[in-house]
Amino acid sequence: MFNKVALIGLGLIGSSLGHAIKRGKLAASIVGFDADADVRARAAKLGFTDAIADTAEAAVTDADLVILCTPVGAYKSVARVIAAQLKPGAILSDVGSVKGAVVRDVGPLVPAGVHFIPAHPIAGTEFSGPEAGFASLFDGRWTILTPVPGSDAKATQALKKFWEDCGAQVEVMEVAHHDLVLAMTSHVPHLIAYNIVGTAHDLEAVTEGEVIKYSASGFRDFTRIAASDPTMWRDVFLNNREAVLEVLGRFNEDLATLQRAVRDGDGDYLFATFTRGRGIRKAIIEQGQDTAAPNFGRDKKPA
Amino acid sequence: MFNKVALIGLGLIGSSLGHAIKRGKLAASIVGFDADADVRARAAKLGFTDAIADTAEAAVTDADLVILCTPVGAYKSVARVIAAQLKPGAILSDVGSVKGAVVRDVGPLVPAGVHFIPAHPIAGTEFSGPEAGFASLFDGRWTILTPVPGSDAKATQALKKFWEDCGAQVEVMEVAHHDLVLAMTSHVPHLIAYNIVGTAHDLEAVTEGEVIKYSASGFRDFTRIAASDPTMWRDVFLNNREAVLEVLGRFNEDLATLQRAVRDGDGDYLFATFTRGRGIRKAIIEQGQDTAAPNFGRDKKPA
Repeated sequence: MFNKVALIGLGLIGSSLGHAIKRGKLAASIVGFDADADVRARAAKLGFTDAIADTAEAAVTDADLVILCTPVGAYKSVARVIAAQLKPGAILSDVGSVKGAVVRDVGPLVPAGVHFIPAHPIAGTEFSGPEAGFASLFDGRWTILTPVPGSDAKATQALKKFWEDCGAQVEVMEVAHHDLVLAMTSHVPHLIAYNIVGTAHDLEAVTEGEVIKYSASGFRDFTRIAASDPTMWRDVFLNNREAVLEVLGRFNEDLATLQRAVRDGDGDYLFATFTRGRGIRKAIIEQGQDTAAPNFGRDKKPA
Repeated sequence: MFNKVALIGLGLIGSSLGHAIKRGKLAASIVGFDADADVRARAAKLGFTDAIADTAEAAVTDADLVILCTPVGAYKSVARVIAAQLKPGAILSDVGSVKGAVVRDVGPLVPAGVHFIPAHPIAGTEFSGPEAGFASLFDGRWTILTPVPGSDAKATQALKKFWEDCGAQVEVMEVAHHDLVLAMTSHVPHLIAYNIVGTAHDLEAVTEGEVIKYSASGFRDFTRIAASDPTMWRDVFLNNREAVLEVLGRFNEDLATLQRAVRDGDGDYLFATFTRGRGIRKAIIEQGQDTAAPNFGRDKKPA
């Protein structure tokens, strides 16, 4: 489908894309680059690319599809370096968790004749690095494309097809709406998970040993989320401030109400609030976005 | 080990206990009771008890070990009903997630000569009901015993052995400390999970369909926690108010600081906060309280 795909950044998502492209035979050649020489050396051995370039410029030369897979905070400097090497007619895309900032930072640097179409695959694990990637990461998950005014419809269609061939379902969305939806479904949940891990760490009356020992009662699920890559998440919060603060404001209002219900011993309010979770959970399982396995018991199965 | 064990309440924990007792041959006979006639009928077919009694009084008659497995809010009325039938020398225990309120509600009703030793197995899944139980639920998990002043050391030892034979590791703890530790590791995490599910439900700018579609980006893990039994959780928050409010106060302070860092674009503070999660996560996995499988990808494995 593509002659040459360039992957800039070879962590979890970049390496998974390499595996998925190979699985689907979606490119004649995959060239990878990572700013970290050690990552480049490890990636070369893992076989999810056909070649590892020594520079970003070399990686993107003659590529039909260039995908930025670095943390979002590095996009601007990467774009500056590669812009002059981008082939006319090439598609420049990315996998970042925020889209407004990407359009702001990268958009002005894209040469005329290059199709800039930001994208965001809603998939991941709590692990990082080139060894963490696998071909089926995107299977059944959603990838959101956020074309900008003037994006070429044919290029958008080609990118949509590419992600479908990587196993994903594809949705097209406005940039600002993407950032609000993700603030709600991803960014604020991660911020809260990181926060409660910090609270547990600092609570003098409960030792860290106790927190770890008794973590199966709920806390461990937050630590799993809070084990995600710190650089990636720093860049998300630096680059989606307004939407995160808006959702966080709502969360805080709701929590104040729930806190008051605990203080007042308002059992009816608590019960009603706790009941609402079950419906949304059911829908998530029915739509294939999670499994119904009783994962609190981890690998154990009902008799 | 015991001649007759009575399980009062046949949901996830009561049924799992039945399975674990049968697996370990820990009792000559297991008699179960549940206030819900439909649950009694279903439990009778599931085979994790030797008999289902029609009343709580009948279930506990002649039992050497009686374990309350109902929601904590029902303990007082159950204790009133069974108190007169408890055999001298019997152990009365429970599995409730709070312990101060249990000592307050049940303690005064326990007849002289009966050994009252509250307990709390730190194990569960997001599913409820007698069908949800399985024998290995407690394997490798911790059960906390909170003996009260005057608890018989021999009886405490026997209950410790019983839980170990059910697969658990056993810790003995002060009642008040238990309630604080669990507020941190379990109760506040659940409250926060329920809260963010509510926030997502109420946010007009993002549809419920979008929340469900893109839930794999973090939100779905909160919905799993928020799918737990509403009655059980209502009773937890009605009965562990002080500790929950204390931990929640800390959480709110920490979140305000983190929110300020997002507003100020303080990348160093965000990075430092996000890095702390990894260490505690590593310890939880090393101590066998969670698996290292990349569960964000659910059942998918790295290549």
